[in-house]
Amino acid sequence: MPALNVTQKLIKEHLLEGEMTPGKEIGIKIDQALLQDATGTLVQLELEAMNLKKAKTEVAVQYVDHNLLQTDFKNADDHAFLLSASQKFGLWYSRPGNGVSHPVHMERFGKPGKTMVGSDSHTPAAGSLGMLAIGTGGLDVAAAIAGQPYFVKMPKVMGVKLTGKLPAWVSAKDVILEMLRRYDVKGGVGKIIEYYGDGLDNLSAMDRHVIANMGAELGATTTVFPSDEETRRFLKQQGREEDWREILPDEGCEYEEHDEIVLDDLVPLIAKPTSPGNVVPVSEVAGKEISQVVIGSSANPGLRDFWIAGAIVKGKSAHNNVSFDINPTSRQIIQNMIENGAFGNLITAGARYHQSGCMGCIGMGQAPASNTISLRTMPRNFPSRSGTEDDQVYLCSPETAAASALTGKITDPRDLEKLYDMTYPQFEEPELQIIHTDMLVAPPEDGSQVTLKRGPNIKTLPEIEPLKDNCEVPVLLKMGDNISTDEILRAGAEVLPFRSNLPEISKFSYSVIDNTFYDRAQKTEQEYGGHIVVAKDNYAQGSSREHAALAPKYLGQIAVIANSYARIAWQNLVNFGILPLEFIDIKDFDKIEQGDIVKFSNLREDVKNRKNIRVKIEKKNSPGTTEVIETKHSMSDRQIQILLKGGIINEFKARLTNEEVDAVNKNTVTDNERSQIK
Amino acid sequence: MPALNVTQKLIKEHLLEGEMTPGKEIGIKIDQALLQDATGTLVQLELEAMNLKKAKTEVAVQYVDHNLLQTDFKNADDHAFLLSASQKFGLWYSRPGNGVSHPVHMERFGKPGKTMVGSDSHTPAAGSLGMLAIGTGGLDVAAAIAGQPYFVKMPKVMGVKLTGKLPAWVSAKDVILEMLRRYDVKGGVGKIIEYYGDGLDNLSAMDRHVIANMGAELGATTTVFPSDEETRRFLKQQGREEDWREILPDEGCEYEEHDEIVLDDLVPLIAKPTSPGNVVPVSEVAGKEISQVVIGSSANPGLRDFWIAGAIVKGKSAHNNVSFDINPTSRQIIQNMIENGAFGNLITAGARYHQSGCMGCIGMGQAPASNTISLRTMPRNFPSRSGTEDDQVYLCSPETAAASALTGKITDPRDLEKLYDMTYPQFEEPELQIIHTDMLVAPPEDGSQVTLKRGPNIKTLPEIEPLKDNCEVPVLLKMGDNISTDEILRAGAEVLPFRSNLPEISKFSYSVIDNTFYDRAQKTEQEYGGHIVVAKDNYAQGSSREHAALAPKYLGQIAVIANSYARIAWQNLVNFGILPLEFIDIKDFDKIEQGDIVKFSNLREDVKNRKNIRVKIEKKNSPGTTEVIETKHSMSDRQIQILLKGGIINEFKARLTNEEVDAVNKNTVTDNERSQIK
Repeated sequence: MPALNVTQKLIKEHLLEGEMTPGKEIGIKIDQALLQDATGTLVQLELEAMNLKKAKTEVAVQYVDHNLLQTDFKNADDHAFLLSASQKFGLWYSRPGNGVSHPVHMERFGKPGKTMVGSDSHTPAAGSLGMLAIGTGGLDVAAAIAGQPYFVKMPKVMGVKLTGKLPAWVSAKDVILEMLRRYDVKGGVGKIIEYYGDGLDNLSAMDRHVIANMGAELGATTTVFPSDEETRRFLKQQGREEDWREILPDEGCEYEEHDEIVLDDLVPLIAKPTSPGNVVPVSEVAGKEISQVVIGSSANPGLRDFWIAGAIVKGKSAHNNVSFDINPTSRQIIQNMIENGAFGNLITAGARYHQSGCMGCIGMGQAPASNTISLRTMPRNFPSRSGTEDDQVYLCSPETAAASALTGKITDPRDLEKLYDMTYPQFEEPELQIIHTDMLVAPPEDGSQVTLKRGPNIKTLPEIEPLKDNCEVPVLLKMGDNISTDEILRAGAEVLPFRSNLPEISKFSYSVIDNTFYDRAQKTEQEYGGHIVVAKDNYAQGSSREHAALAPKYLGQIAVIANSYARIAWQNLVNFGILPLEFIDIKDFDKIEQGDIVKFSNLREDVKNRKNIRVKIEKKNSPGTTEVIETKHSMSDRQIQILLKGGIINEFKARLTNEEVDAVNKNTVTDNERSQIK
Repeated sequence: MPALNVTQKLIKEHLLEGEMTPGKEIGIKIDQALLQDATGTLVQLELEAMNLKKAKTEVAVQYVDHNLLQTDFKNADDHAFLLSASQKFGLWYSRPGNGVSHPVHMERFGKPGKTMVGSDSHTPAAGSLGMLAIGTGGLDVAAAIAGQPYFVKMPKVMGVKLTGKLPAWVSAKDVILEMLRRYDVKGGVGKIIEYYGDGLDNLSAMDRHVIANMGAELGATTTVFPSDEETRRFLKQQGREEDWREILPDEGCEYEEHDEIVLDDLVPLIAKPTSPGNVVPVSEVAGKEISQVVIGSSANPGLRDFWIAGAIVKGKSAHNNVSFDINPTSRQIIQNMIENGAFGNLITAGARYHQSGCMGCIGMGQAPASNTISLRTMPRNFPSRSGTEDDQVYLCSPETAAASALTGKITDPRDLEKLYDMTYPQFEEPELQIIHTDMLVAPPEDGSQVTLKRGPNIKTLPEIEPLKDNCEVPVLLKMGDNISTDEILRAGAEVLPFRSNLPEISKFSYSVIDNTFYDRAQKTEQEYGGHIVVAKDNYAQGSSREHAALAPKYLGQIAVIANSYARIAWQNLVNFGILPLEFIDIKDFDKIEQGDIVKFSNLREDVKNRKNIRVKIEKKNSPGTTEVIETKHSMSDRQIQILLKGGIINEFKARLTNEEVDAVNKNTVTDNERSQIK
C-alpha cells in the first residue's frame, strides 16, 4: 500500500467511480449534506420535483441563516416552507436564529472521515474535523441527498506544513490571511489544501475551522485537516467523543504541491478593499479612521473569537464614532459567552448585538456609512458586498477588530500592550460547552404525509421537457466573451427574493445584456417552442448560481453554442437539460447572427453517438439563404444520459420508475442510525 | 387655591401663555425634548436652518432606535449625521442599539414635574414618572429645543381611578387594553388621561410606562401619573433618587371626565387585527395557530416584562412553528436580564434575539409569514404595519405572548397552571439595577466648531420664501374629502430613506393621488412661481408627518383652499409657511377647477388684518371668464406672524437677528445643570 495523505484516504474510502488521478472525473459517495436558506429553497423544490421519499444521506441539514431580515412576507414564508420540506424529505431543520450553518454543523453533526456537499461556498469549513466537504450547486446537493454520487474532477493535493506556535496577538485568521497573501484568490483553484505538521498542536479545532472556511477565498476545491487528539478534545467538549476517529497522513505520503508556514513568524494581517487576497500587515494601514467593526460570521465563529474580543474591550467603551456590531454565531455560543463573561464584556463596551446568522456577511443589513472604513472578521470584501456602493471593507482577526473598535482607528493589536498596558489574554477551552440542540428540528420517521407550506412566492418547479430530436428555433441573443452569470441572471435585493419563484425570477434573464430578452423569449416560446443563444469564450463565468441555467431553460432555451464554457456553469447547463454545444471552427461564430433561425435534425441520436451536431442556419437578413455549420459537445456518458432526459431531475425520476433506486443508494442509512445524531 | 389634579399642577407650573380652559390655546415652557432617528434628521436640519447655537432645554436627547437595519449607506450615514448634529447643537446622543427611546429616557433622564415634547407619538410614556410629555411634529420639537414655548389647545383632563390589585397572569398591558376596549382609538382625543387611586400601589413605575405609552392609541394628548413613593423607588433603583419630587393630586381635585377600573376584575386581554381598539378577552380567540411571537417595544419594555416571559418558558422550548422573537429594550436591560437569568431562559427556549430598538414595531424587519397570526407585545397592529400585507397581528401582554409561544396557539396564560402545572411567577424588583450610560454621548460645552457629517443623502433645508403679496398661480390639484397625509406624502420603504433629502422626497408629493403632480409642479414653479391646491373637508388627516407640508412647500405651494383641516396638519402648514385658507361658502368649491389660474392681491395685509381673502379665478375652460370667491383663515396672531415670515424657521431666525433670543429663552439652563444629568 502506498503512503496516503488525509485527502487521499478520505476520497479512497468514498470512491464509487473513476481513479484518483488529478484532472480525471471521480464519483464519490456523499455522507452528509448542508443547505442554507438562500440556496435551500431551490434544493427543496428540486427534491420535490424528484419525488424524493426520504433523504438518503446519513445527515442532511437545512440551516436558516441568510435571509433573516424580514421586511416583507417572503423570508418568513420561506422559513415555513423549508421547515415543512425538511420534515417531508427527511432533513434536519435548524431554526432561524439558531446560528450560522458551518460552525453549527461542525459542533453538532461534523464527523471525522465523512464526506459532505453543501449549497454554500464555505462548506469546506467542515474540513477542520477531518472531513471532505465541498461547496457546490444546489442540484448537486439535491442529487446527493437523493443518494447519487458527487462527480468532480480529482483535484491536486497541496500540502501546507505548519510549524511552531502563533505569537501573542496573532490568531488563526492571520494564518489564512498569510495563505491569501501568498496565493491570492485564484491560487487554490483545482486544488485541495491539506494542512499538517506540529504547528497543528497549537491550533484548536475551531482555529482550523477559520482556516478551512476561508480556504474558499483561495479558490480551493476544499481544505482538509487531519483528525487528531485536538479533534477528539473538540468532539468531547461537544458531548460526542464517540464520533471521533483518528485520521492522520501516512508517514512518507506525498503532495502534488507543497508549502510551509512558520507560525512564530506571523504578524497581524489585514485584507484591504476590495479583495480577500489584498493582504498586508495591519501595521501598514494602522491609523486610518473607521466607522464600523463587525465581529462574527463563519470565518471567526468560535467561542474563543468572541471571548478574546470581550477580554480586550472589558471595562472600556467602543469609540463614539464606531458602530461595534457583534453577530454571535449561534444560540449555543451565546449561552457559552454568557457563561464565560464575554457577552457581558462586549455589551458593556457598547456592542450592538444582532441575531445569530450571517447578517452583514451576505449584505443582510450592517451596511456601513458612505465612504468609510468597516473592519470585519468576515471572509469576503468584494466591492459593494456590504450593501454600500463605495464601501471600504477590511478583513482581519478578532484581536485587530476589537483593538480598532476601542481606538476608532485601524490598530495593530500588539499596540494594546502600550496603549492600555494589556497582556495578551489567554483563552482556556472549557472541558464541556453548554450544548444547545432544541432549535434543531429532527425529521420524522415518515414524512410522506407532510404538506409543503407554500407561500404565494414559492412555486413548484415546472416539468422540464426532454431534449427534442428535431426543432427549428431562433437565435435569441448573440453575445461575446466572458459573459458572467451575473449578466445572465443578476443578484441583488430586487431579484433574490424570487429565488423560490422561477416564473418571476426568469423575467430577469439576460436583463443586464438586453432587457427585451424576456418578452422576446415568451414570444418565440409560443411561436417556435424554444430558442438558442450564442456566445464566444468562457460563457457563464463567475458565481455558481444555478438560476442562470434554470431560468433560461424555463423560457425555452434548448441549446447554447459557445466557443468555451466556465466549468460549473457548463455542468449546470447539462444538469438542467440545456445542450452546451461548441463551435468546431470559431470562424463559424461570424456565420450566425441574432434573429437567424437554426434547424437541428436527429439531435438526440447525434448527441448520444458523439457525432458532430449539424446546425442549419436560415439567415434573417437574407431570406431564403441558408448556411450549415458543425458543432460538437464534450459531455461524459453520464452527462449525455442526463441531458437526453431533460436534466438531473428527470433522470432521477426515471430511475425511480425503473426501480433502480436501491442500486444507486449505496449510502442509505437506517432510521436508527439517523436518529442517534446529536 | 382650588384643589388641582396632577395634570393641572404640571401645566400651571409651566404656563407661559393662555389660560387652563379646555379648548383654549396655551403656551407652556418645555424642559426636555426627545428625538428619534426617523423624525430626528429633519429636526436637526431644522435646528441647522434656525442657526441654533445650543439647545435651550434642560435636556434634549437624540435617540437612534428606528432605522437600525442598514441595507445600504443611508441609515448609517444618518446615524453619523445625528451624532455630529447632536454635538453641534447640544443634544445628548443615544447610540444605535443603545435602546428604545421612551424607556431609556425614563430610566436615565425622566424627572417628575418636568415637561417634554418628543417627535414620536409614544412620548407620553414619560407621564409614568409624573411628567407632562407630549408627542408632536418635528418642527415643534425643534422650536422647543430653540427655547420657544409649546402651543396646544388645553385638553380636558379625564381621571381614571384604579382600585385593587391585578390577579395572577394579568399585567399592566391588560389595563391599557381594558381602556382601549372601553374607549377605542378615538376615545382619548382632546384629553389628558390621569390615573389615580390605591390601585397604583400595585403598579410599578414601568407598569405605568406601559399604560402611559399606549395611551397614545386612545388618541389622548398624553397620559399622566402622580409621582409617589413608587416613583421614588424607581429613581433610586436607577441611581438617581435625588431627581425625585412628590406630585400628588390635591384632595378634592376635579376631573372633566371620569372612569374607574377595578384591577381585580381584569382578565388577560388581546387586541385583534387590525386595530389596538379591537380588544377581547384572550379566551375568546384562544386556540388559533400562530407563526410568530414578538416580545419587546416601548409598550412592554421593562425588566419584569422580559423576566416573566423568561420565567414562563424556562426549561421549555418555543413551538417549532413559532418564530420567538425577543427585542431587548436596551443594553441596560440586557445586562440586567443576564443578571436575573431571563436572558438565559429565553435563549435556551429558542428566542431569536434582535438588536435593541423598535425593530418590527415600526416594520423594521420581523414581518410575519403570509396570512399567519403574529402575537406581539407592541402598541399597534394597523393593517400592513408589520410589513406583510395580509398580516394578522394581535397585541397582548408578555404573559399571553410567552404562553402562546410554547403552545403554538393563542393561549390564555391562566391555562399554564393546568398545562404546565405552573404557578404565576412573582417578579422581585432589584434594589439597584445595573446602570449603563456609556452609550449616551454627552454634548460638548461648545459645539460651534463641530462640522455636520452629511452623507450624500442628507441635504440642507432650502431657504423658505416669505408669503407673497401678489401672485397669479395655477390650481395644480383639486381633491375631495378626508385626504390623508399618506396620500399627500406616502410612507414605506421606497420613500422613507429620503426623509433627510427634501429634493428627493418631494418627488413623491401627492403621487398616490396623481403621479404627474411632481412634474407639473416643477413646470408651474418655473412658469408662475408657485401653485395652490384645493380640497374639501378634513384635509391632511392621519399621521402628523410634517413632510406632507414641507415637500409641497418645496415645490412652490403657496396656499391650500379647503373646507376644513385636520388639526396637526393645519399647524404644520402654518409652520412651513403655506397659507391655509377656508371657503366661506362651500358652494364656491364648485367654482374652482384644477387648471384654473388664481390671482391674489394685497395678500399679506389682508392676512394680517384678518380680512376675507379674495381669490380671482381665471377659468381654464372658458378663457377670458373670471370668477371671484371669498375665503378666510383662522390663524392666531402668533401663527399669522409665523406665516408672514415664511414659517417657524424664518421667524426664529428673524428673532435671532433682533437679539430677542434672551427674552424668549425663559427655560435656558446652565451648562453645569445640564452636565449633571445621569
